[in-house]
Parts: sequence; structure tokens; C-alpha cells
Amino acid sequence: MTTIETKPAAANLIDGQWGPGSGSDAIEIFNPATGEKLADLLPATIEDAEAAVAAATRAFVEWGARPLGERVRILYRMKTILEENAENLARTITLDQGKLLDEARGEVARALDFLETALAAPMLYHGQNINVTTGLDARRVREPLGVCVAVTPSNFPVMNTVQFSAWALVTGNTLIIKASEQDPIASTAAIRLLQQAGVPAGVLTLLHGRADVVKHLISHPSVAAVSCITSSPTAKAIYEAAAASGKRVQANGGAKNPIVVAPDADLDKAAAGIISSSYGMAGQRCLAGSRVVVIGEVYDELLKRVVAIANQIVVGNGFDDDVTMGPVVSAASKERILGALAEAERLGATFVLDGRNVKPSGGAETENGYFIGPTIIAGLDPAHPVERMELFGPVINFHRVESFDAAIALANDTEFGNAASIFTQSGAVAAAFERRVRAGNVGINSFPAPPANVTMGGYGASFYGDMHVCGDAPLAFYTDQKLVVSRW
Amino acid sequence: MTTIETKPAAANLIDGQWGPGSGSDAIEIFNPATGEKLADLLPATIEDAEAAVAAATRAFVEWGARPLGERVRILYRMKTILEENAENLARTITLDQGKLLDEARGEVARALDFLETALAAPMLYHGQNINVTTGLDARRVREPLGVCVAVTPSNFPVMNTVQFSAWALVTGNTLIIKASEQDPIASTAAIRLLQQAGVPAGVLTLLHGRADVVKHLISHPSVAAVSCITSSPTAKAIYEAAAASGKRVQANGGAKNPIVVAPDADLDKAAAGIISSSYGMAGQRCLAGSRVVVIGEVYDELLKRVVAIANQIVVGNGFDDDVTMGPVVSAASKERILGALAEAERLGATFVLDGRNVKPSGGAETENGYFIGPTIIAGLDPAHPVERMELFGPVINFHRVESFDAAIALANDTEFGNAASIFTQSGAVAAAFERRVRAGNVGINSFPAPPANVTMGGYGASFYGDMHVCGDAPLAFYTDQKLVVSRW
Amino acid sequence: MTTIETKPAAANLIDGQWGPGSGSDAIEIFNPATGEKLADLLPATIEDAEAAVAAATRAFVEWGARPLGERVRILYRMKTILEENAENLARTITLDQGKLLDEARGEVARALDFLETALAAPMLYHGQNINVTTGLDARRVREPLGVCVAVTPSNFPVMNTVQFSAWALVTGNTLIIKASEQDPIASTAAIRLLQQAGVPAGVLTLLHGRADVVKHLISHPSVAAVSCITSSPTAKAIYEAAAASGKRVQANGGAKNPIVVAPDADLDKAAAGIISSSYGMAGQRCLAGSRVVVIGEVYDELLKRVVAIANQIVVGNGFDDDVTMGPVVSAASKERILGALAEAERLGATFVLDGRNVKPSGGAETENGYFIGPTIIAGLDPAHPVERMELFGPVINFHRVESFDAAIALANDTEFGNAASIFTQSGAVAAAFERRVRAGNVGINSFPAPPANVTMGGYGASFYGDMHVCGDAPLAFYTDQKLVVSRW
Amino acid sequence: MTTIETKPAAANLIDGQWGPGSGSDAIEIFNPATGEKLADLLPATIEDAEAAVAAATRAFVEWGARPLGERVRILYRMKTILEENAENLARTITLDQGKLLDEARGEVARALDFLETALAAPMLYHGQNINVTTGLDARRVREPLGVCVAVTPSNFPVMNTVQFSAWALVTGNTLIIKASEQDPIASTAAIRLLQQAGVPAGVLTLLHGRADVVKHLISHPSVAAVSCITSSPTAKAIYEAAAASGKRVQANGGAKNPIVVAPDADLDKAAAGIISSSYGMAGQRCLAGSRVVVIGEVYDELLKRVVAIANQIVVGNGFDDDVTMGPVVSAASKERILGALAEAERLGATFVLDGRNVKPSGGAETENGYFIGPTIIAGLDPAHPVERMELFGPVINFHRVESFDAAIALANDTEFGNAASIFTQSGAVAAAFERRVRAGNVGINSFPAPPANVTMGGYGASFYGDMHVCGDAPLAFYTDQKLVVSRW
Repeated sequence: MTTIETKPAAANLIDGQWGPGSGSDAIEIFNPATGEKLADLLPATIEDAEAAVAAATRAFVEWGARPLGERVRILYRMKTILEENAENLARTITLDQGKLLDEARGEVARALDFLETALAAPMLYHGQNINVTTGLDARRVREPLGVCVAVTPSNFPVMNTVQFSAWALVTGNTLIIKASEQDPIASTAAIRLLQQAGVPAGVLTLLHGRADVVKHLISHPSVAAVSCITSSPTAKAIYEAAAASGKRVQANGGAKNPIVVAPDADLDKAAAGIISSSYGMAGQRCLAGSRVVVIGEVYDELLKRVVAIANQIVVGNGFDDDVTMGPVVSAASKERILGALAEAERLGATFVLDGRNVKPSGGAETENGYFIGPTIIAGLDPAHPVERMELFGPVINFHRVESFDAAIALANDTEFGNAASIFTQSGAVAAAFERRVRAGNVGINSFPAPPANVTMGGYGASFYGDMHVCGDAPLAFYTDQKLVVSRW
Repeated sequence: MTTIETKPAAANLIDGQWGPGSGSDAIEIFNPATGEKLADLLPATIEDAEAAVAAATRAFVEWGARPLGERVRILYRMKTILEENAENLARTITLDQGKLLDEARGEVARALDFLETALAAPMLYHGQNINVTTGLDARRVREPLGVCVAVTPSNFPVMNTVQFSAWALVTGNTLIIKASEQDPIASTAAIRLLQQAGVPAGVLTLLHGRADVVKHLISHPSVAAVSCITSSPTAKAIYEAAAASGKRVQANGGAKNPIVVAPDADLDKAAAGIISSSYGMAGQRCLAGSRVVVIGEVYDELLKRVVAIANQIVVGNGFDDDVTMGPVVSAASKERILGALAEAERLGATFVLDGRNVKPSGGAETENGYFIGPTIIAGLDPAHPVERMELFGPVINFHRVESFDAAIALANDTEFGNAASIFTQSGAVAAAFERRVRAGNVGINSFPAPPANVTMGGYGASFYGDMHVCGDAPLAFYTDQKLVVSRW
Repeated sequence: MTTIETKPAAANLIDGQWGPGSGSDAIEIFNPATGEKLADLLPATIEDAEAAVAAATRAFVEWGARPLGERVRILYRMKTILEENAENLARTITLDQGKLLDEARGEVARALDFLETALAAPMLYHGQNINVTTGLDARRVREPLGVCVAVTPSNFPVMNTVQFSAWALVTGNTLIIKASEQDPIASTAAIRLLQQAGVPAGVLTLLHGRADVVKHLISHPSVAAVSCITSSPTAKAIYEAAAASGKRVQANGGAKNPIVVAPDADLDKAAAGIISSSYGMAGQRCLAGSRVVVIGEVYDELLKRVVAIANQIVVGNGFDDDVTMGPVVSAASKERILGALAEAERLGATFVLDGRNVKPSGGAETENGYFIGPTIIAGLDPAHPVERMELFGPVINFHRVESFDAAIALANDTEFGNAASIFTQSGAVAAAFERRVRAGNVGINSFPAPPANVTMGGYGASFYGDMHVCGDAPLAFYTDQKLVVSRW
Repeated sequence: MTTIETKPAAANLIDGQWGPGSGSDAIEIFNPATGEKLADLLPATIEDAEAAVAAATRAFVEWGARPLGERVRILYRMKTILEENAENLARTITLDQGKLLDEARGEVARALDFLETALAAPMLYHGQNINVTTGLDARRVREPLGVCVAVTPSNFPVMNTVQFSAWALVTGNTLIIKASEQDPIASTAAIRLLQQAGVPAGVLTLLHGRADVVKHLISHPSVAAVSCITSSPTAKAIYEAAAASGKRVQANGGAKNPIVVAPDADLDKAAAGIISSSYGMAGQRCLAGSRVVVIGEVYDELLKRVVAIANQIVVGNGFDDDVTMGPVVSAASKERILGALAEAERLGATFVLDGRNVKPSGGAETENGYFIGPTIIAGLDPAHPVERMELFGPVINFHRVESFDAAIALANDTEFGNAASIFTQSGAVAAAFERRVRAGNVGINSFPAPPANVTMGGYGASFYGDMHVCGDAPLAFYTDQKLVVSRW
């Protein structure tokens, strides 16, 4: 089932050369659906990071001065290469990250969507000019920043690496990606394909490593900007460290996203929406709903319908066509989630659905996989830490409130602010929710994910910085504008 | 000469109430042209800052939800009030900061220019929307951030306070200004006028205080954003501290701005431009040129013409019509500049012009003022620290190089990156300079100051963050956008 | 009651000089509320129009080259002058056009809103620039067009003249307004105030005249652009004639705007909305609803509530505080509406409300005024011409349909396409209406009027051209962009 | 040499079906390099046009409602197909239109550039939204127009057809192209490739026909918009006729473009620039320079250098590698140019270079081709009609003036306003030229052609309408915006 080409499994790309890291303490890479070891990855070291920065700095001189139109040509080639290798790339994602093959195909498709947004750069890169007074004109001219760093997460190893690469490179920057060490085979596969498009040595760098490498990069004086997608505490720490060395930063953090169900909602659509939001990718999306807030007596009926659908979910290996939910990404992740659930149980939570001992389909092959089945807990005080933390797994906390105001209050009772959704048929309720909820991404009868061509939001601890990702926001993040005042 | 109404001289505005700070260790305020004490200012304390944040937080609830059109009405009233009090305000600036009365009038005019840019908010506040697929739409909606902080400098006590107030308030935020303690009478006068426009209590706050107040504000969990204009080390420290508490930041730092003179330049225009750039406001502008780089043998002739004009400059009290250059802002500032000049002398610098013992016009009245006359030094190694530091006074370092490439190299040999200018008649030379110089604000035969309706640049240590000031950049800085995905 | 200063009542402004037209066949001006003659207006002739174009052409040389910032200063003065004279101006509107004094005050306020949108020009006038390849840059630079013409209607004699003046002038064009000959006193009063702001001779021109003057202007070779707001046949004829002489054109035509009421609507709000939309300004707004389409059995109840409110309406002189609906603008207008109603009666229409013989309040003073009371007719075939024409009076045609699809079909069954509204509580119904209705301005539980800072729409026979009015659209209409490709 | 596949040579595409026109009076198609007949083309008739409009109207219902993202997918396929067939397409252009094969390859490349600009539509298609007051929001939503028509010229039979197709279709419109009847084989080849991308029947239409077909289309009530590129009189007539039937129009006309050479210009670059501008594509570009204005005594030297380069030009069949200038497009075109030159001769013009009896390379094969060699005339009064008309061939009129002001005056002495260039080394001269010249496209030491991602200009008789081509201007031309005001 996993006959895809994955050798050499994961590697670093530094100054145009692929190879293992200089570290000796190998990172073990596992197939999350089977627990089988896929590779021993020698990690990049601080010295590797230093070499990468040096190469990226050298490469910037030519790349940053290369006309935009020529950089765009390389992105078009990236697109062609990714398309030609899409299926293999998707299979690599499933192997390494665990998601369903269809989810992995969706990820590759979305990576291409993001790449296409960067292809629009020639229509967006314009500066502005205005006459000040006779003979005196002002104009602003876009310029790239220099060496940029992106720290990418495990849940979209291909999409996020492609997304940052496309925009950083098209705008004339060089980029160093520190990819998640949990699924480096997938990110390696993606960058291999991009690199084939004719990217000069040093322009695109891939590093696999541990926290020391991240720390070195984000405070390096030759690095101009840092992007990351990670947990909130790490995002905040990256924001602080990168700022301390004077860089611009966009730091995407974690989430605990409420889904409000109003009494007038279409309950079938609400139930389907909750299932899709909370259990898609085994709950490992930063926009996934994880706290359902039901207003009034429809609570019981809604819960019944959600459970009915959840009971149909088949947990197992993402390569298996019958499977509808894959594993979480790592043993550590599973352990973390089980720990939180144990704490919830200790606090007296009702387990409406308990996925802790889920039996994955696939028999012996999957018995060592990192599976957690669909889980619903209720009855906890929403103020308790275990209720407020991001679990990043297929777990929903259910709550009943008695009024719209109470629903808003509970939806806003979080330090995060990534996403919030509502199901309702009322235009007025939807509008009030949109206005009053404190979340950067709001779904009305919908999952709150932006299409690739629209900039994402992010409030509170879910985002640090001021320039977001997606849409045309990367153009602003990856360029600065020089003001020129000329008198002739 | 100074019969303007300035009592109570300087005060804090907290929760709509004017009053002295709770501190007991008074800050002494002096007239820089005479050295006479203007006031003892009881500083704000951390407790005052805390009360200010609490009031601003409360006030945000109503102000942030108030329709944009209503906020704009208050700004129009601010404009009327400022216009009606322009002359008195200008005189207060001259009294407290020392600049020429005409320079002060210019500052008030420019404050009004900035206020007018904020009046355009109804034409700029739009979000964006797009259909995703049938029945599914995405839109982005602007929202204010909450409580914002601005730390403003001494050189434009009215312009900067008005500039931040106008944009922070029109976008729906509440603003706490920590104004320079060197000319608090002028900033107080400005905020008094703005407040008269009907600003609700807590929406606009003015604090005078020391570093402890700044530190408290920039790390306060209820503050959403921080702007500052200050020296580079302080700007960087503010960036770090504000980032550490998760805020968005725009931190404007110092400068050491080169002016290149090409061999084909109109030397009269170049000389006049240098004088105006370097000695305007006694050199106390962040865009002032302070390092002149002359290519080739026109060096001697240019220097001769600059000296000739500089010798006409009359130093003295800014209220005096005959005076063409005022004092620097404080005794400490004068001392700092003299220290640097002594170090330059020690290193063997040639003092082409030596303003250290300048005799101000005005006789006894000005004999204790903080005056430094036009100064030109030459012959120093541009790599030496004293050559690279920002002096913020009427001092120019002259250098001769033999090629355009050498001129670019010297212009770029700075950790700052605020401004750079060139004088030339050649379109090609100007274009090459614009392309190759690393500075956020470039002047071609011109002072590199943006008009109010164009966003300023800032590279290197001259700016930390990613969203600049001036033009419509404050709209982006002072708002975030919520993404709404709706399915109907 | 009408003691306002109105002498000289109406006049032409040509080359900076106020005076009567050269025509001898005077236009009689009446107070529509009393029928009393206000003035005999000697009309402008073709010779006057020729002189006006010549003056505007001469004036353009200096005005078009004047820096934007200086033109903006004049607009700020216009704003001050209009504000200081607002009440008198409103009273002039009521006297000359007939609308309620409060409606007239609203018109002046909205004129100021439009003027404020033009004050944002410095933030919007920017061109764009982009590097093409090393050494080759492209930029676009805005330039004014030259002499522009605006043909304005009778219903907003102040707002429309101010709106066109503000934008044409701020962008550097000179403007010739051919105002409606039905209320020239009001438009004269407005232009008098604008002109006092320091507008140079020839920059702003006001002509009162007949169709020959319009024809001369719109085909004059020295005129660059034509705007008009008029009936659809005239708008189309102006579009054709102006195009035949190579001009850019924006031609706003008439309307027959549907209001759909869904079964789930809040009927009180729907009824109030219909009354306000259809009877406000005696139905003389191009966005007024005039065809109500009710879905299903709420028809009877809705009609009952509309009639109940309509019965409270007091028709009379707009100066009278108790009056809630004024006259139509002219005897001819009244006659035209009565003719259409007679035709409707002949066809068997049910007159649910019959305002033809309304008795205005005010006794003898108003007995010769041009009054029509609130009128509702039902039972007509919507395909009949009398059902489809624009009446521009307080007349509503009611229809009942049995489905949403039928409502959409009836709403779209018009050659116009100006506005359409719906009342509903359902987000989905509102979204479907928005998507499917063919109208440039759509109201959801609301009157479909754009705020001044948003560009208006206009489909079908309601608009000819491609650049609309309101918001920032006038910037595009009133400027062209020169492309500059430079190689240095 | 011409072994490319061209059968069936030219055909109409109506409702998804390729076929000959219903007309009986065949249009003869010739190879302009040889005079050999390539095909007899049965033209489309009014009935064919009527069928085309009907099909386009039907097709719009589904196509206009299809999500933007799906339409973009088809454009990406168009791109792939064009790329795969680029060489064959280029050869077809050379065969049918006559330009050099390298020029033809450039045309195909530029067609792809334009197609890529349309691929950016998802980043540009956004509407805008803004809150009006609490509970009341306004937004603008883009919608396609319906059936659009493009009348394309002979000089870029592939580029222009692709350009209009890409933008009309991606924005959701259906398009009817009436292509030039002078090189229909090339336009047919292009549309055949586009259509293969999966364009539904009726969405894209190609008609070859005579003026009656154009007239029918531009006044057809079901057509919403008309674009054309043609001579100025025809452009004006199309503007008028299309306006008369209420359509939006962009009508690009002819040109007579000045090139000014300042005394300080690099004469080699100026000479090379003139040759390239005036003789590229045998002078058949709307941006080609055709009137050279030299300031002062460099006239003789410049002329000498231009002649020297021109004398190296080899005229002949564009397929021949040695040839550097091809024929003009048709016998009629050659005849028209020769007529004008005869008239010039009659008036006493000096023929500095006389290309009337040029002997093309290629011997017998080309002896019946439509060749005119590089021609330079001087000594004519610039006011004479033959000096002012567009010749659209390799003919330059030289003039000497004695001042910059005189050069500007002569450059502006034209009813056209398409392009104007200057060669100079002075930044100030370039800036003054840019400011003072009345032309929509200005070149500074450069050919004034916009890159595909920048909107073109066009003043005077060179453009009728207000929305230009190239860059993102087509987005505005091909969409309208519906205003939605919602109260919830």
C-alpha cells in the first residue's frame, strides 16, 4: 500500500545541496498509522543553520535583483512539476503525516491554490506615486526584504512549505524553511519538486532540526523576517525573540474554536458541519471546531445527530479507502490528548463518545498506530484549563447555554481568537454573531477557512504580528516600500 | 516676547480629567532658548498609567462600536479648533521646544495635514468580499484593535501627537500618548485642543512621565498596539518588550542620513539643499542629512558654497524674526553633541565650521540657551563610532569619494536606513541611486520627507515592525480584519 | 414663512460673472407648494454656452496644473461656507423644489457628505508604478480631463450640483453645470456659495437653459466628459450624442424599483420601509420603491399596515412643521402623474389609496400647489406600459405573487435596473435575492441608497456608461492615466 | 518553408461549431510575403451574427454563474495548450500576417503574458464592504456583463484575440470576436487552441465577416459591451453606434506618434530606438513612432546614424532568417501607403530614404509580396494632412526644431494621442516632457509599450471610452458592481 518512492526519505537543502544534517542524534520518523519507523533523520545543527543563512544571504544579491517576471517563470515551472507529481506527493503526506489520502490530495490541491495566488504577483507588486507640487513627485517602490525564515507545522507539511516558498521567492526574498520534524519526508518531497523548477542555490533552504536550530534562525542578524505556524506559547516566544533582533514577524498560534448552534439552525447541516470541522484530519487543523455551544433545548437533538454520524466514522490507515479518519500525527500527540482526557474524566466529565480505546480497522497493521476515535465530552466547567487548551485531536467539548448572549460570552471566553462558527437560519442572528464574536475567522453555516485568495484572520493568542497569511497579505509581509521624493 | 498663555503648563489627561501626575519627583521644564525654567512637572506614575489603561479599556467599548461617520465628525471639529488656535499653538512650540516660530507654524500646518489624511478614513476603511462558490461568500471586515499607545519624541511635540491621535481615534481605538518630557507644554496644548472636540473620557490620554511609565505601558496586557518615535536602541527595546506581550508594534528609530552630490549637480541647489536639510530645526529631524558625500573634485567648490551660506545663519531665540536657527532642545542634548564633537576633535577631525562656541543673538536673554552653531567636520574615518552615531544637532560630516560606486558604498555604510539623498542632473544617476541605496526615504534633488498623504519608509535600525507611519499606513496599523465565510 | 434671501433668484455663472442668460423667452419659476411665481428666468443660449466652454477651456490651463493640495484647500473653504449657510440653503430648496424642510436639510447634509468624499482626493489620487526589468520602469500618472459637463436634475438641486462640482474641481477639471430649469434658485444658491471659496473664473460654470443648450454642450468638441442624471430616454440620447463627439459619459436614467416582501418579513418594518421609500420626497427619488411585490397571504395584512401609516401622512407646504409630504416639483409633473393614474383607472385598477384629490393642509395658501396624496393601486397587469413607466410621484403599485421565484421574476421584469429591495428575516432568502435580482442597488430590509462613501450601482436603462457616481468612482471618471515607460 | 498545418484555413466558431460563414461572396486571403492566395473565406453574415449572439446569450446563463475558480481552471488549460502549440501558432502568424517569425514568436509570448494577467483574477475580483452604522452595512459585488463583442485588428491576430478572450471569459462574460478579415487564418488558429481548453459552446465565438457584421453586433440589444482596436474614424463610429444602443465601449483608434530627440541624447541609442520603434513589424504597431522631432543641430548627425542602420535592413519573407523586415499586411495597405508617399513627393518632400521600390530578398518567391522598404521623408509642413495621417507602414517623417518648447508643440500637434517618446540624459528634461506631452503612453529613452501587467493609456482620437486595455483595466471593463445595503 505504501509503495511510493520516499528515498532518501528526508534531507536538508542547503546552498543547493541535499544531504543529511550534521547532527548525530537522529530524529526517528514513524508512520503514524502503523507505528513503523520510516527513517532516522540526522538533524540540522546550528552550524548547518549558519551555513544556510550564509548561502541565503549570498543568493539574495542576485535573486532579489532578478526581474519579477523571471521569478514568476520559475513559479510556473513549480506549478507544472507539482501537478505532475501530485499523486505521489499526496501519498507521501499520508505515509508521513497520517491523514486520509483524499485529505492529502486536498492538501496538494490547496498548495497549488496558494502557489497560484503568488503567480498573481505581477498584478499586485505595484507601488504608488503622486505629484506633490509642480516639479516634485513622490513614489513608493516595492523591494524584497532579504533572507526570510518560515517555521512550519506538521499538519500541512506540503501546503505550508509551498505557500511560504511561493510568496517569499516570487517577491525576491530567499527563504529558509525549518519544517516540522514530525513529517519531514513529506516536506522534503515538496521542496524537492519546487527546487527542480530551477531555483538557484541558496534561494530556497530546507532544514530539519530541533529547537536550537529555530532559536538560531529567529535571532540571526542576517535574517530579515520570520513566519511561523505553531502553538501559541511557541508563537509568542518566536515573536519576542525575532523582535528582539529587529525582524518583522508573523506568528500563527493555536486555537480553541467554538461552534455555536442557534435554536433555529438546520440541525442536520449543523451536525454534519460539526463532524466535518471537528473530526476532519483527526481534529488537527487550527480552524477545527472543538467547543460546541448549543443554545437551548435543541441541545439533545443536535447531540444525538452528531453522535449518530460520528458512530459511522471508520478509524484506520489513511491509505485504506474505507477509512474516514486517520491517526494523530505522533505517539507524543496521542499521549498528550489521552492525558487531557484522563484529566477530564477525573474532573467528572461525561464521555458522550469515548474514542480512547478505538479499535482501528486494518488489523495487525494498524495496531501500533496513533489512533484516537471520535470523542465528545460534556459537563465540564468551561473555565477549567483542560477545557480551554488546544488538544489538536478528534475531541469536542459540548455545552448548553440558554441564550444568544450566553453563547457569545462562552464563545469569547478564550485567550485564543482563531475561529468561531455559528449555525442559524436568521440573517440577524448571523450578523450579530459576526459583529460580537472575537475571532479572526468566522463561519456562518460554514467552516471558517479562507479560500486561498482571501487573507486569513487571527485574533488574540492565535496570531502575533500584524500581517496575516493567505490572499495577498504575503505581498505586504514579504516586501517593504522605499519612498522616493524627486524634484526635476 | 513669550506672553502666550501656557498655564497650567503641562498636565496629564486621564479618563477625561486634566491634572498633575501622582509622582513627587518633578521634571523641570526649560525654555531652550533662554534656559529659564518654565514649569515643574509632576510626572505620571505607574499607578497613573494603570488608571489610564483602565479608563481607555472602558472607553473602547463604546468608542470602538461607534459608527465611523460619527468619529469622523469629531475629527472635523478637532481640525476647526486647531485652526482657530494655530498661532498660539505654534508659539507654545517655540517656547517649549525652541524651534523658529516659522518652523513651529509649519509644524502646526503639518499636524493639520496629517489630521486631514485621517478625515479620508470613510473612503479607505472598506473591507473586501468575494464569492467563493455558489452560495458561499467570503468577506473581510475591519475592526479597531483596542487600547493603543504612542510614545512621542521632542522634536515635533504637536505634529506627532496629533498624527497618532487622529488615526488611532478615527479607526475606533483609544489612545494613550506618552509624550516627550522635554517639551510637555507643547504636547499638552495640542491635546487640550483635540480633547475639546468632544472626545469621550478615556478615549484620548496624555501622560508625562519617565521610563517606568513607558515600560509599564508597552508590556501591559490590556494594550493592543504600540507606536513610538525615538532613538534606535530605545525603539528596538520597545519593539522587543511590546512583542513579548503579544502586541503589534511600529517603532521608529534614529538616523544618520547621507547626502550624495554628483559631479554634474547644480552646486547652488545642492548647497542650499544641504543647508536646509542639515540645519533646519537645528538638525533635529530624523530625515535630516548629516553625512555629505561628494564625488570628485567638486568637493572643494561645494564645501565653499555650503560654508558661505552657513556663515549667514543667525543663531538665537526662535521668537526673534532675524534668527534663522534656534537652540537644541535641552541642556543634555547640547552636552551630548559637544561630547561627540570633542571626541571628533580628539581624533583629529578638521572643523571646517565650528559652532561650539556660537554667540547667539539676543544678548543676555539667550546667553544660557542651548545653542550650537552650524558645524562641519571633515577628515574622519567614516567607520569610527563618532562618525556613525546620530547627533541630532546642526553638525555635518563631509567626505570626498572618487566614484559613484564609492558614494553608494559610503551611503550604505550605516546600521540605520532612514533617508538618503542625491543631487544630480542625470536621470540615469538618479535612477541608479534610487535602486542601490539602502534607505527607506530617498531624495532626488530634494529633501526626502514624504508629504502627509504618502507613507514614509524606514529601513534597518531606523524602523522596527512592518507597518509604517504617514499616508494610509496607519489604517492598516490601527485595524485588523475579521474574515467571515458565510454559506446561505 | 419664506422670508429667505433669494434675490437675484437664479442666474448663470459664466467666466466668473453672474448674470441672466441672453435668451429672451423667460422660464417661469414657481413655488410648487403654492403655485406662486418666484421668478422669470432668462435662459442661457447657445451663445452663452459657447462663451462658457471658451472660459472653461481657458481656465483649465492653470487649474488643471495647480497642485492637488491647493485645489483641496478651496474645497475645504467650500465646506465651511456651505456649513455656515446650511439653513438658508435648505430653505431655498424647500421654496424652489417643494420638499419638506427636514428633507431639504438632509439634502444639504448629504451635499456636505459628498464634498467630504472629494476631500479625500489626496489619499486616492495616486498612480501606480512597477519595475519591468532592470533599468526599465513603468508608471501611471493621473491627469484631469479638461472641460466637463454635468446635467443635473430637479430633485436634488443642491446635492447633485455640489457633488459634481466637488469631484470635477478637486481632480483638476473645469465644470459646466446645466442645472434643472425647474428649481434653478436652489442650484444657483448652492453654486454661489461654492464660488465664494475662491474658485477662479471659468473653473465652475452654471447655466440655466433649455434642451438646445444641453445639446450644444454634449456635442461640443472642447468638452471632454459629460455626466447627467435624468430620465432614461434622455440619458440614452445624451450618451449617444456625447459618444458621437468622442467624450466619456456617465448617464444616469430613470427607475421603477421593486420592493419584495417575503412571508417571514417583520411586517411592521416592511410597511414602514415601504412608506419611507415610496412616499419620501413625494416619491421623487430615483431609488424610491414604486412596485411592491408581496409573496403569499401576508399580502392583505401588509397592505393594511401600509394603508394605516399612509393615512397619517399630512400633505402640504414643506415649510409647515406638521406636514409630512410636500408637493411634486411642477404642474407638469403633477399632470403627467394624473394622466398615468387616469390611464390606470381606465384599465380597471383598484385604487387602494387615491391621492388625486388630496386636500393639502395650509388652506388657501396651498390650494394651487402641485399636490398628490399617497396613492396605492393594485390589480393591473404588470406588463402594461402604465405599470412599467417611472411616475416620479407618491404612487405604489401592489402585486401579490405566490413564490419567491415569481417575486424575482416580477422584480426583474423591467427595462430599468436601478434598485430593488426585499424584506425578510432569512439569511438564505436575502442572499438568493441579492444574487438573482437584476438591479444595481439592492436593499435588504433597507432602503438601497449608498452612503456617500460607497459607489452607487445602476443596471439596464438606469445607467449608461461604465463609471458610476458616489464613493470614489468620480476619481476614475474625472481623471485619465498617462503611462510612462522610462529606461535609465 | 511554410509547411505548417493551416487547413481548414479560417473558420467561424458559432455555438461551439466550426464552419464557414453563410455568405457567398468569399474573402480572398493572401500571403503578404508572396502574394499567393491562401484561402477563400466564406464570410459570416448578419444571420450568422444573429445566431452567434443567440448562442452567446444562452451560454451566459451558466457561464456567468459558474464560480470564478472554475473559469480560471479553463484559462490554465488554455495556457498549457497555447504553450504546446506556440511555434506552430507563430508560423501561422508569419504566413498570414507577414511579420518576421521572431516577431510572431514574440506575439505569441505576449499573448501568453496577457493570458497570465487574467489568471490573477481571483486576486482582483473582490468587491468592497463597509459598515454604515450599527446594523447597516454596504457592500459591492462584482458581476459579469453578459455578451461582449471584440473587433480585433490585423497586426496582432493572435495576441489581441487571446487578450480579449482571456479577460472576457475569466470574468464570466461570453465573447464574440469579429477578427480582422486580413489574417483570419492566424486568429482562427488561436481560437481553435483556446476552445480546446473546454470552453462551453457559445461562450467563445469567432466571426470573420465584413462591416455589416460589425454593425449588426455593435448595435445588437443583447450585446452588453464592445471593444475594438481599429483606425480612429472607425473607432469613433463604433463608439457612437454602441453607445446609441446603450453599451459600454472601449474603442482604441489610430496614432501618429512623435519621437523627440534632445540635444543631450545618446545618439546611438536614439537612432537604434527610432529604427526599432518605426520599422519594427514594418511600422504596423499603434505605438510605433512615425514623426521624429530633433532639437537643434544634432539633427544631421542623428539622421545620419538612423540612415546607416536603416540601410542594413533586409526586406523579405518573414520566414527567412536573414530578413529583418517583412511586408505590410495587404496589397491595399501597400497601395494606401504608396499613395500617401506620392502625395508627399508632389508636395516637395525630401526622400532621405525611399523604400517605394524596394527589392525584397527571396527572388521570385517574394516579387509579388506587399513590400515597402524603410522610408524617411523630410521637409514637409507638419500641418499638411499627409503629415498627420497614420500610414501604418515603415515611414518616418523627420523634423528639426530649435527648442524644447517647439518640440513639445510639434509633438502635441496631432489629433491623436497614443504615444510619444523622448531621448535625453537629463532627468529634468524627461520630467518636463512627461508632464507636458499629450499622449497616453510616454517613452523615456524607451519604446512606450506597457508591459502586459500595466494598463495602457490613450488620449485624444487614439481612444474613445474611459476604461483602457492591459493590466487590470479589463477587470473593470468586463464587470459591473452591484451595491447591496443590508440592515440586520
